[in-house]
Amino acid sequence: MLIQASCLLNFTSETPVPTTFMLRAKSGVAQFIVKEEMHTSPYQTMTEFTDTYGNLCQRIVLPMGDFQIRSTVVADCADLIDVNYSAPWTPVELLPDFMLHYLLPSRYCESDKLASLAMEITKDLAPGYAQVEAIRQWIQTNIIYQYGTTNSSTSAFDILATKTGVCRDFAHLGIALCRALDIPARMVTGYLYELKPMDLHAWFEAYLDGRWYCFDATQTEPKGNRITIAYGRDAADVAFASHFGPVTLTAMAVTVEQPPPGTITL
Amino acid sequence: MLIQASCLLNFTSETPVPTTFMLRAKSGVAQFIVKEEMHTSPYQTMTEFTDTYGNLCQRIVLPMGDFQIRSTVVADCADLIDVNYSAPWTPVELLPDFMLHYLLPSRYCESDKLASLAMEITKDLAPGYAQVEAIRQWIQTNIIYQYGTTNSSTSAFDILATKTGVCRDFAHLGIALCRALDIPARMVTGYLYELKPMDLHAWFEAYLDGRWYCFDATQTEPKGNRITIAYGRDAADVAFASHFGPVTLTAMAVTVEQPPPGTITL
Amino acid sequence: MLIQASCLLNFTSETPVPTTFMLRAKSGVAQFIVKEEMHTSPYQTMTEFTDTYGNLCQRIVLPMGDFQIRSTVVADCADLIDVNYSAPWTPVELLPDFMLHYLLPSRYCESDKLASLAMEITKDLAPGYAQVEAIRQWIQTNIIYQYGTTNSSTSAFDILATKTGVCRDFAHLGIALCRALDIPARMVTGYLYELKPMDLHAWFEAYLDGRWYCFDATQTEPKGNRITIAYGRDAADVAFASHFGPVTLTAMAVTVEQPPPGTITL
Amino acid sequence: MLIQASCLLNFTSETPVPTTFMLRAKSGVAQFIVKEEMHTSPYQTMTEFTDTYGNLCQRIVLPMGDFQIRSTVVADCADLIDVNYSAPWTPVELLPDFMLHYLLPSRYCESDKLASLAMEITKDLAPGYAQVEAIRQWIQTNIIYQYGTTNSSTSAFDILATKTGVCRDFAHLGIALCRALDIPARMVTGYLYELKPMDLHAWFEAYLDGRWYCFDATQTEPKGNRITIAYGRDAADVAFASHFGPVTLTAMAVTVEQPPPGTITL
Repeated sequence: MLIQASCLLNFTSETPVPTTFMLRAKSGVAQFIVKEEMHTSPYQTMTEFTDTYGNLCQRIVLPMGDFQIRSTVVADCADLIDVNYSAPWTPVELLPDFMLHYLLPSRYCESDKLASLAMEITKDLAPGYAQVEAIRQWIQTNIIYQYGTTNSSTSAFDILATKTGVCRDFAHLGIALCRALDIPARMVTGYLYELKPMDLHAWFEAYLDGRWYCFDATQTEPKGNRITIAYGRDAADVAFASHFGPVTLTAMAVTVEQPPPGTITL
Repeated sequence: MLIQASCLLNFTSETPVPTTFMLRAKSGVAQFIVKEEMHTSPYQTMTEFTDTYGNLCQRIVLPMGDFQIRSTVVADCADLIDVNYSAPWTPVELLPDFMLHYLLPSRYCESDKLASLAMEITKDLAPGYAQVEAIRQWIQTNIIYQYGTTNSSTSAFDILATKTGVCRDFAHLGIALCRALDIPARMVTGYLYELKPMDLHAWFEAYLDGRWYCFDATQTEPKGNRITIAYGRDAADVAFASHFGPVTLTAMAVTVEQPPPGTITL
Repeated sequence: MLIQASCLLNFTSETPVPTTFMLRAKSGVAQFIVKEEMHTSPYQTMTEFTDTYGNLCQRIVLPMGDFQIRSTVVADCADLIDVNYSAPWTPVELLPDFMLHYLLPSRYCESDKLASLAMEITKDLAPGYAQVEAIRQWIQTNIIYQYGTTNSSTSAFDILATKTGVCRDFAHLGIALCRALDIPARMVTGYLYELKPMDLHAWFEAYLDGRWYCFDATQTEPKGNRITIAYGRDAADVAFASHFGPVTLTAMAVTVEQPPPGTITL
Repeated sequence: MLIQASCLLNFTSETPVPTTFMLRAKSGVAQFIVKEEMHTSPYQTMTEFTDTYGNLCQRIVLPMGDFQIRSTVVADCADLIDVNYSAPWTPVELLPDFMLHYLLPSRYCESDKLASLAMEITKDLAPGYAQVEAIRQWIQTNIIYQYGTTNSSTSAFDILATKTGVCRDFAHLGIALCRALDIPARMVTGYLYELKPMDLHAWFEAYLDGRWYCFDATQTEPKGNRITIAYGRDAADVAFASHFGPVTLTAMAVTVEQPPPGTITL
């Protein structure tokens, strides 16, 4: 389906603050980027680089005072994510070299601490997709989605104590539990059509049988119509904004909708 | 200056043909990408990956029959390229590791065959910018810009025989002569405002005193307002279209202009 | 000085266990690798790949039962590490793109939680080397070096509570505090001559004024004669052995000494 | 089989000359590096980096006057290379992204000029291994192995005219003909046991059915016992020595043999 998504961020700061944004998508297996726009106010240019995950990162120095960035993207997306209960686990010795990276613990995904929970959740299941789906369902059942209960320092391990969190926390927990079973897993950030309430979103992917599969513990259906912005080990790698100095986010507005009729033709 | 550039390519082929396009720009030191669009007809999606140079590459299978791709970009560009006659040469032992790559000969830049010419052109000049500028001027003076005299197999060495070529050949020769002097040099493809006749363009950059400088042997002035699409060792790395099968380019139209008033606000 | 180091690891496991070792050094700014050997018993081959940090990683499947790996290296090392109290901090906006990676929090270095401590430790100091040295001294003064008080899940934040740890914990804390001040910092593993008690060692580096400087909070002098094996964000990236399955380390012996006279000539 | 190989190079130069060596092997699918040594005389240290192909590269400034480097390696190698006549061609659209790189023409492998020859040699053959083997045999039959007929500027296209060359030229021609058929191909340098006359050696690999296969047009049998030192697009990427200044190679000695009894135990 053709989707138009936009993200508007307002910041204020008392000094110039170097910042890295990750707000620009690439075409991929389930999305074709038709159009993109990026605007800043006051007008400020950026440079762009590609990180080790292939993500596009925008470097800028936020000016003192108020600053707004608006990013818009139109993409043609798959309506559903691929579901494949019979996809088997890939034994570690058969993984491509660079995939080993996604088995290691990371800042927000302490897989080294979650081995028993992961085994308990997936007991008696065939290694592979079925395990990851059980993890996804366990999170959905056991963690309450609630704004304001976690912050940018909250990790997968932390939310096991509070049993509450937002999409990013759900994703971290899913990733940590997968890695605890030696299943490569990564964080994904982007947009999801009809997400409620609307916001920037995060979910996770697991590498099974030679490809990545998408999992979203915040949703009950295998919804597609997702625009991926960035991939990484966890939120540290894919923050939509990394500030190197004190900045306040004063407003944020995200829209994800079908483009108004007549505005875009494929 | 704000520039709007577009490229329209029509192809025809008798079978499906896997193709890699390089038609999508990133923001960088002299350009901020404000807007981009990409359309295909018949409608066909693409995936995208980042190559070892950080370029965005679009993968697609061109369908049998006629196919059109149209890429549009709006960018805010520097009006002039940086000129610095006193920028010194960086001794090879002080170059960053990954820069050594740009000293080696490549498909279209046989620097190994051009040492004496490079030395002759730059005789008595201080190592660095002055040498590269002398090379640029030598090409401009000695090679005649003429369409249809070269093709996709023509190398820097080849055009020394015919003394004719197009922008890509001028760039190859500049690169090969720089490398023959142990100056890292790379190919750049993109758009140039007010290029005559209008077309996709190519030029080169040389690494001097810790940064890349832009050189264009087809121009008499240090014109900016360039939108860089891709960087690489030579045209093999940065072809706007690499076809893996027989394809005919039936039409091509490039426009580079200021956006119509009122269509884009920074 | 010429140093000969060896590491012998004995493992036992009840099933074959895929494992990644990082036990092989490269030549670098302060070390020239003269000789290396690696032996396994029972004899077992490995493949090798380079990770995103340029480290050499050895992949193997540990056989069921007992297994021994013995790695030996002879290197010519700098006797002292470089010390430069006046090396200034590099503002974030001037860092090379790939250096931003080393400013982010990672599994064992929760820099996001340590901003106030970092500022307190470095109060009134000029941004740069002096800050990192103050951090190093603070760790040396405030954390007690003690085996067995921490494990492979212990992070920088954790040891602030217990105030005890080993070299790896000291390094994690140094890294986390540097990053909290927007100073790029990385983990280093390797050998240190005359380390007491002898063991595999870990320390950290901070990027200041365009280069990496070495810091070791376990030592009172700026001792060189270090052989670096691997660089990374923290111990997750540079573990000397990452097992993907249950394995017991049954014995370990590390030696670092001057080669016996007559065995190696430069 | 356990193989001990050594390479001794003597140079002389009138000025210090920055040089990159590629003389150090990594363990891989068909080789396990047991031991390595590197000596220089006069004694001179090197730094080492990993290039985009994962090769280890040694940077050094050759001193004025005479200089000797001696590299020794002991490796356990597969006795035979894998042969698989039924391995099919991988359609370009199914190749991993980074494999596309190996389809492009490069300095010494002008695949863009060799399409008709490649098709003629492989007429009526099933796409895949059988084609590459036909290419290998064609080279063996049609090109005469002869020292001194080619030099460091000779390309695949060049030797079609002279019909003579050495191992490096044979490899270049094999690579160029494979790429002309859209088969990814790469250059390999290293040692071959019982090569006659003994020297540093070069051969090529083709990517078929998800893995690389080894081909050597200088040999009549599928001989293994090869120690790979480096992989790349062609000789420009994998030269055992790249000098950035005038240097004379005054002597070279290569030995490849079984280690003397009792010197190495696995």
